[in-house]
Amino acid sequence: MTAYDDLINFQRETEALAQVAGRLGWDQETVMPRGAAPQRAEEMAAMDTVLHARRMDSRVGDWLADINPDTLEDVGRANLRLIQRSFDRATKVPAALSARIARVTSLAQGIWAEARAADDFAAFAPTLEEVLALKREEGHALASGGDVYDAMLDDYEPGATGDQLKKMFGALRPELTELRAAVRDAEAPPMLEGIFDEGAQMKLTRQLAKTFGYDMTRGRVDKAVHPFSSGSGLDVRITTRTNALDPFNCFYSTIHEVGHAAYEQGIDTDYLLTPLGSGVSMGVHESQSRIYENQLGRSRAFTGWLFDQMREAFGDFGVADADAFYRIVNRVSDGFIRTEADELQYNLHVLMRFDLERALVAGNLNVADLEGAWNDRFRADFGFAVDRPSNGVLQDVHWSVGLFGYFPTYSLGNVYAGCLDKALRAAVPDLDTSLAQGDTSSATAWLRDNVQTHGGLYEPSALIERATGSKPDEKPLLSYLTTKFAAIYTL
Amino acid sequence: MTAYDDLINFQRETEALAQVAGRLGWDQETVMPRGAAPQRAEEMAAMDTVLHARRMDSRVGDWLADINPDTLEDVGRANLRLIQRSFDRATKVPAALSARIARVTSLAQGIWAEARAADDFAAFAPTLEEVLALKREEGHALASGGDVYDAMLDDYEPGATGDQLKKMFGALRPELTELRAAVRDAEAPPMLEGIFDEGAQMKLTRQLAKTFGYDMTRGRVDKAVHPFSSGSGLDVRITTRTNALDPFNCFYSTIHEVGHAAYEQGIDTDYLLTPLGSGVSMGVHESQSRIYENQLGRSRAFTGWLFDQMREAFGDFGVADADAFYRIVNRVSDGFIRTEADELQYNLHVLMRFDLERALVAGNLNVADLEGAWNDRFRADFGFAVDRPSNGVLQDVHWSVGLFGYFPTYSLGNVYAGCLDKALRAAVPDLDTSLAQGDTSSATAWLRDNVQTHGGLYEPSALIERATGSKPDEKPLLSYLTTKFAAIYTL
Repeated sequence: MTAYDDLINFQRETEALAQVAGRLGWDQETVMPRGAAPQRAEEMAAMDTVLHARRMDSRVGDWLADINPDTLEDVGRANLRLIQRSFDRATKVPAALSARIARVTSLAQGIWAEARAADDFAAFAPTLEEVLALKREEGHALASGGDVYDAMLDDYEPGATGDQLKKMFGALRPELTELRAAVRDAEAPPMLEGIFDEGAQMKLTRQLAKTFGYDMTRGRVDKAVHPFSSGSGLDVRITTRTNALDPFNCFYSTIHEVGHAAYEQGIDTDYLLTPLGSGVSMGVHESQSRIYENQLGRSRAFTGWLFDQMREAFGDFGVADADAFYRIVNRVSDGFIRTEADELQYNLHVLMRFDLERALVAGNLNVADLEGAWNDRFRADFGFAVDRPSNGVLQDVHWSVGLFGYFPTYSLGNVYAGCLDKALRAAVPDLDTSLAQGDTSSATAWLRDNVQTHGGLYEPSALIERATGSKPDEKPLLSYLTTKFAAIYTL
Repeated sequence: MTAYDDLINFQRETEALAQVAGRLGWDQETVMPRGAAPQRAEEMAAMDTVLHARRMDSRVGDWLADINPDTLEDVGRANLRLIQRSFDRATKVPAALSARIARVTSLAQGIWAEARAADDFAAFAPTLEEVLALKREEGHALASGGDVYDAMLDDYEPGATGDQLKKMFGALRPELTELRAAVRDAEAPPMLEGIFDEGAQMKLTRQLAKTFGYDMTRGRVDKAVHPFSSGSGLDVRITTRTNALDPFNCFYSTIHEVGHAAYEQGIDTDYLLTPLGSGVSMGVHESQSRIYENQLGRSRAFTGWLFDQMREAFGDFGVADADAFYRIVNRVSDGFIRTEADELQYNLHVLMRFDLERALVAGNLNVADLEGAWNDRFRADFGFAVDRPSNGVLQDVHWSVGLFGYFPTYSLGNVYAGCLDKALRAAVPDLDTSLAQGDTSSATAWLRDNVQTHGGLYEPSALIERATGSKPDEKPLLSYLTTKFAAIYTL
């Protein structure tokens, strides 16, 4: 056994334990009896303690020091890079600081939830100050003299920098606000009306999951309050939700989560339970969920097929034809909430969070001024005022649990999805013909071969460049959105 | 923080991890996608490695050495006793031997399953030889010069000895074979006939679970191939199964598992995630499942209520009245399989396994002669011949996975149940009046207060003596069975 073998065996065990911890999360959101919550908190904490200790185990440092990367092939070097990053991450932050962050964010989530329910930002502000101060301290420890926000980003999107994203998002914002304003001035399609049986929604949602290549022998679909995908390798589960008035919520939540799950299921099984065996970044993950959901799932071609499926499942539901259906699916509506936003407006929500959190981390914005800054920015981009904090600065859980540097990966994922969609359509010119028949296989196969199968082998930006032939760039997304909504709204 | 506090905190974390590992088992049998099996094996192995390392962690030894038991109250001393036992268990067996047993038994289970499917004991015998040799080696390490079989028993029923059990079971066997022979000569009640909707079975089974005090806010009922109860503390889940031809299988599996689960749910919550927070032994556990299932669930009083519930759920199902129903529920039928045996014959199955495995461990019986010894004993006790190995020596998984010393706890549980039933009926004279109305609360409250609440505080035999006023004794069980079946079969 070489040091490399020892290291990989140790990592396999760590990854197996991480999968177990993840499955506890699935259990909690789907099947756990509600009275079990206090015990579950202790179980999760115990798993975290075990995982944390393994990630900073001194043997990992010894093995890393003993291995000469030049003796390894590509896969070995990639494993080494990911393990080194994780080890540095775990060992650079003082244990007392990690423990304090865990304790404070755990409490902060409850305080945020209460403040949101009371629509009272001031009740949350002191806690957010504390979380921000701790996360900045952690960021300084991780940055080793470099940019603190970039160090935070690195947890979610390795290699990305705040400056790069600022440039990319800076190019997106004026185009998106302009397109949105034009759409808002045009005549909107009607909204979907009617009652849609929730059992029939679940039946069709399972069919949609299979249609998009989700492997049910290595996964399952359940209901949860907030849809999510969970797990890697041979056990990747998704959840969705139903609402009798809004079947699209169910169907597109499912397709979105299937995008995440297909990524995990599509990774080369040689990488099972190794560092390469999970999606490489939040941004690339989101690129898969979004291209499944939007560029494929909300395309004119695919919605034509979905229209037929819905007619079969629900009978005549008051929509005349597939063209009208397509416009309804892609209707743009005013709204305050990021998670409910359509694909045209979604990135505007994210972009403002990125600018605000970067200013918070840099010390250019005080928590005390955050609500005002949020409301000003919202009015500037969306053209109307936030009515209350729960529809504004208190709507997302992220900052309360210390997730700074996470938001931009949502839009980066959409940018990647734009790039991938352009390359996919060039590679598969008759894609719409298949999609119109409910056949996504040529699209999902291309994504599997060019993105998913590689797992953590390539860094995110290099992966997208390999798949598309160009560095990640916001223009394909903009061009896609402009063309699509210009057609729907006859701009 | 004293050494005792450190030790208990460490144990709480270990117990929380053990609960997680247990929940993986639940997941595997109820909701896991079938394609996940290879990954799950790695996940379980990783949890086992973590738990094993914690159980033999040298800090535990240091803490145990540092603590003066005289400074502790009863609860502290009981915790210490259980931790010491577990630490001794983990450290007495050489790591290489433990690893080898894990590897061999994992393979042996598959070989046993194939041999059973092929009805070929010779195909399994060499593997059983190997498992037995390894378990004997382990038993020698654990026995420290004492009796090897007693050391094995200690894993499942602390304090019990082979000689004690031999005496107790020796008193049971002639009485049971005689009673069985008399019943077999008498006229049998008819068998239940008809088709019973499986959805309605599940509905009634959930009602039965609640009727017997199962707390659904800290548990749930699912279906599994083999019914089981899983978990301790605030998350105790049960499973059951349905068969359209045999609703009793569903209902009495549920009541049995509710007995196990009520024990875990009934333990004083002060003991949550400590060594005292789980059932004290397999025998006491089985006493709870069996008294719920048999002495309560199959009583004339309770079956009268169940008859009404079944009439409501299924309409007229061809049984004239509650007396006829009671006789049908308690019908004694010939059969080869332990797990399908009625309460009269069940212990005869266990007693033969106890004698055979004790002889194997002592070296008085060779594996090569086991099939013949099994078949001879079966014919002697049951009066007819085993027709094939899958109905005989190959029917149980236990020995293949190294469970020697486990079987007798089934009958010990029945003996305990007999003792508890006698004491319960003395304490609650109008019990049948409540049971006849489907009200089990006076029985379950007595069992909770006298047995369940104590968790691991008292050793099994002392616990039963505390609850009943007498040392465990087979006579109450014999008297109960004799009276019951004499009445049903008019002997």
